[in-house]
Amino acid sequence: MGLHDKTAFNAGGRKGLFVTIEGTEGAGKSTNQRFIAELLGTHGQVEQTREPGGTSLGEELRSLLLQVRPDTFRFSAMAELLMIFAARAQHVEEKILPALEAGVHVVSDRFTDATYAYQGAARGLDLAVIRQLEISCINDLQPDLTVFLKVDAATGLERVQARGARDRFEQEKISFFESVQQGYLRRAEQFPGRFIIIDANQSLAKVQSSIAEAIERVLGQS
Amino acid sequence: MGLHDKTAFNAGGRKGLFVTIEGTEGAGKSTNQRFIAELLGTHGQVEQTREPGGTSLGEELRSLLLQVRPDTFRFSAMAELLMIFAARAQHVEEKILPALEAGVHVVSDRFTDATYAYQGAARGLDLAVIRQLEISCINDLQPDLTVFLKVDAATGLERVQARGARDRFEQEKISFFESVQQGYLRRAEQFPGRFIIIDANQSLAKVQSSIAEAIERVLGQS
Repeated sequence: MGLHDKTAFNAGGRKGLFVTIEGTEGAGKSTNQRFIAELLGTHGQVEQTREPGGTSLGEELRSLLLQVRPDTFRFSAMAELLMIFAARAQHVEEKILPALEAGVHVVSDRFTDATYAYQGAARGLDLAVIRQLEISCINDLQPDLTVFLKVDAATGLERVQARGARDRFEQEKISFFESVQQGYLRRAEQFPGRFIIIDANQSLAKVQSSIAEAIERVLGQS
Repeated sequence: MGLHDKTAFNAGGRKGLFVTIEGTEGAGKSTNQRFIAELLGTHGQVEQTREPGGTSLGEELRSLLLQVRPDTFRFSAMAELLMIFAARAQHVEEKILPALEAGVHVVSDRFTDATYAYQGAARGLDLAVIRQLEISCINDLQPDLTVFLKVDAATGLERVQARGARDRFEQEKISFFESVQQGYLRRAEQFPGRFIIIDANQSLAKVQSSIAEAIERVLGQS
């Protein structure tokens, strides 16, 4: 598939850092993604991207995924999962790997951990199927650092509602986001080496001081 | 996933027959799909459908798949494969299984054999990955009968060119369709019980007499 392997930073042709930012709705991902990009920008070129999306094809798939459909329509959870991985395969091949190989740091708003949390923990799809897709479709590419912004589901949803019209995911019930949160926490437990959990109910200054510390640490390792 | 299992006709809740029609571009699938539907129509209700597509979401994915994109765009073969299986998962859950369970016969222009031929044999994706997707995403649903219309790639392409504007697949080179053809023939060898190979260079009358014989045989078994 032309994908490099998943080995650590600076191996397998990867010269840039791959940082992902994760969290439920209203956790403050956008603000903090920009902050991470600024920090990394003092150590080289940075590309900010997002999932689902990040490429022209991926953004078209994103629209289909987020579009609010009639109540009579039942979106197959498996179709949702496969569309997300389709967008991801394109994203990795077209944008993420070429950037990392060219020495550009990549900061992505969401990556595969989100799939384990949303489609796995919350929708109830088999985690082994997600794992299979991760191996066969993106050659098990993993981030160097994953910043998980942990916010109370209720607080997050209030922030989202304040923004106006909600997409198909944002219209889910609070119990859905609680399951997503649990899914993320299990991922963080499984991969303590690359995850940092940040309490996003804190002040932005405190959140960003924790982020800055983590970025310095990862840059120090490279 | 709420899918029934793949056991034979009349088992696992399936009461209708599931017939697929396969072949490269210009093999005469549309004409012969209607003919099969007429034959089955004398033995119950029939639903005609197609892949990729068959549902509102599936048709949206089909448009993205067939759309001719700029020469600079490189469609990830893996993204293509996953979009096709996304459309298929929705198709099976929303339309094919409910119809079969309600005793309606389903005739689909293409199904998973097409994926082994196009994305496997012609694009070169790992057949084991396609097999994994077939098992995990559509619970290994198999047709009762697959009619493969075998046409010379050159003859087929001439017919397609006569129709006018060509989609992203129809713009492929003749060697691509020769690989697709080989892929289909290997599928037919592997599944002789459900496949019939029909020489579509013959007259329509001869093609349809072979199809009618196969349909009668399958109906006789049910």
